[in-house]
Amino acid sequence: MPEDQLAGLAAVSVVAVVEQAYFSLQVVYARRKHSVSPPATSGPPEFDRVYRAHVNCTEYFPIFLTVLWTAGLFFHQGVSSLCGLLYLYSRYCYFHGYRQSPQQRLAPLYLGAKVLWALIGFSSLGIVCSLLRVYAGVDLVDLVFS
Amino acid sequence: MPEDQLAGLAAVSVVAVVEQAYFSLQVVYARRKHSVSPPATSGPPEFDRVYRAHVNCTEYFPIFLTVLWTAGLFFHQGVSSLCGLLYLYSRYCYFHGYRQSPQQRLAPLYLGAKVLWALIGFSSLGIVCSLLRVYAGVDLVDLVFS
Amino acid sequence: MPEDQLAGLAAVSVVAVVEQAYFSLQVVYARRKHSVSPPATSGPPEFDRVYRAHVNCTEYFPIFLTVLWTAGLFFHQGVSSLCGLLYLYSRYCYFHGYRQSPQQRLAPLYLGAKVLWALIGFSSLGIVCSLLRVYAGVDLVDLVFS
Ligand SMILES: N[C@@H](CCC(=O)N[C@@H](CS)C(=O)NCC(=O)O)C(=O)O
Ligand SMILES: N[C@@H](CCC(=O)N[C@@H](CS)C(=O)NCC(=O)O)C(=O)O
Ligand SMILES: N[C@@H](CCC(=O)N[C@@H](CS)C(=O)NCC(=O)O)C(=O)O
Repeated sequence: MPEDQLAGLAAVSVVAVVEQAYFSLQVVYARRKHSVSPPATSGPPEFDRVYRAHVNCTEYFPIFLTVLWTAGLFFHQGVSSLCGLLYLYSRYCYFHGYRQSPQQRLAPLYLGAKVLWALIGFSSLGIVCSLLRVYAGVDLVDLVFS
Repeated sequence: MPEDQLAGLAAVSVVAVVEQAYFSLQVVYARRKHSVSPPATSGPPEFDRVYRAHVNCTEYFPIFLTVLWTAGLFFHQGVSSLCGLLYLYSRYCYFHGYRQSPQQRLAPLYLGAKVLWALIGFSSLGIVCSLLRVYAGVDLVDLVFS
Repeated sequence: MPEDQLAGLAAVSVVAVVEQAYFSLQVVYARRKHSVSPPATSGPPEFDRVYRAHVNCTEYFPIFLTVLWTAGLFFHQGVSSLCGLLYLYSRYCYFHGYRQSPQQRLAPLYLGAKVLWALIGFSSLGIVCSLLRVYAGVDLVDLVFS
């Protein structure tokens, strides 16, 4: 069963989904607390920050999943999954930081961005090796380690 | 051809894409009808509801696809595909309910949420079994059914 | 290593991620230039256009990735990857067109939409063939070409 080799990436993906569901619920609660009924999307500053924190996490969610899987498939599943967990942790801090004040969203934002760039780097490395092997018959891993 | 085993999930994914394209077009038509030219995003209440219905479906689209595929790969393709179709139906009702009034978005929203939680549950179950088999050598399916 | 067969699709996906990161950074720079601090999302018209250009590209990003991969897996990896690059080019033009004026977003938007519909068509064709082969034992490719 080849899926077994992907169970780590799939586990991180499901945790990511649950985190997004949690952020959504925070918006629902904030809507109730501050009486901001849909389709409205703005209210008191506390509401706006929770609302924007959710939107920002949502914007990066598909980007994150894409590089989680490309890095996991073409570079290393374990490394990629650990980076994934770190990213999800940074997003949790981002959300709760942003809720306090826009200033407090910055440190976790930078951490999350670093993790994403690392995953982009791992993916690129793995994919370039793979393309060279298939289309140019060159095995970089072999060349470097022998 | 291993892709064959994924054709059901892929079919549901493409239907989901077509549904999103349909929702986008509704926003384009609503923009014309109510003369709300980009980059503006608000106008009369009828426009705002169509606009928000699209945004909300868009926010949940990557979440849906993720659990559709994890449940399909690690639990059961057929069950997951059927849940997927039910979810897309709930989103269709959500969109047209929300367009009428914010109140009418609620029933389909709850249905859709239930389906998502079911897919999250199936995924988790399948992934935990898979992780146990690979990393602990324990086969839960065997243990339970023998 | 079966991943090799997907390296082209993965490469296009990573380019897509980098493009989204580039669009995000443009919003960050526009926020600084026009002093629009989060959680605010509107400011002078130039800011609004950059902001909306990013949002619109973000909305279509998961749709694009889905059909890129379904077309690549079920129809043809090379054709799908080339369509993918064309789509990313159209989005680059969309972003910079929209930044100039709403009018200038239209031509690249139509190009991008055409590419997406092509990918939807290729995916559907490939998936229908696959479903017929698995569930009805009919091989369309054989029937047509012999
Ligand atoms: N972006 C959503 C996140 C939470 C959510 O999904 N809310 C549900 C229940 S209140 C909804 O239908 N929101 C309406 C909307 O997004 O316009 C929001 O602003 O409400
Ligand atoms: N969110 C989009 C959904 C529909 C869409 O993709 N519209 C195209 C053609 S009107 C567009 O360029 N929209 C500009 C924008 O999203 O700011 C909207 O609000 O218009
Ligand atoms: N949609 C984002 C795109 C760029 C981005 O990710 N910005 C970071 C750093 S300024 C952020 O935390 N934005 C706050 C927000 O999206 O509300 C924005 O409007 O700012």
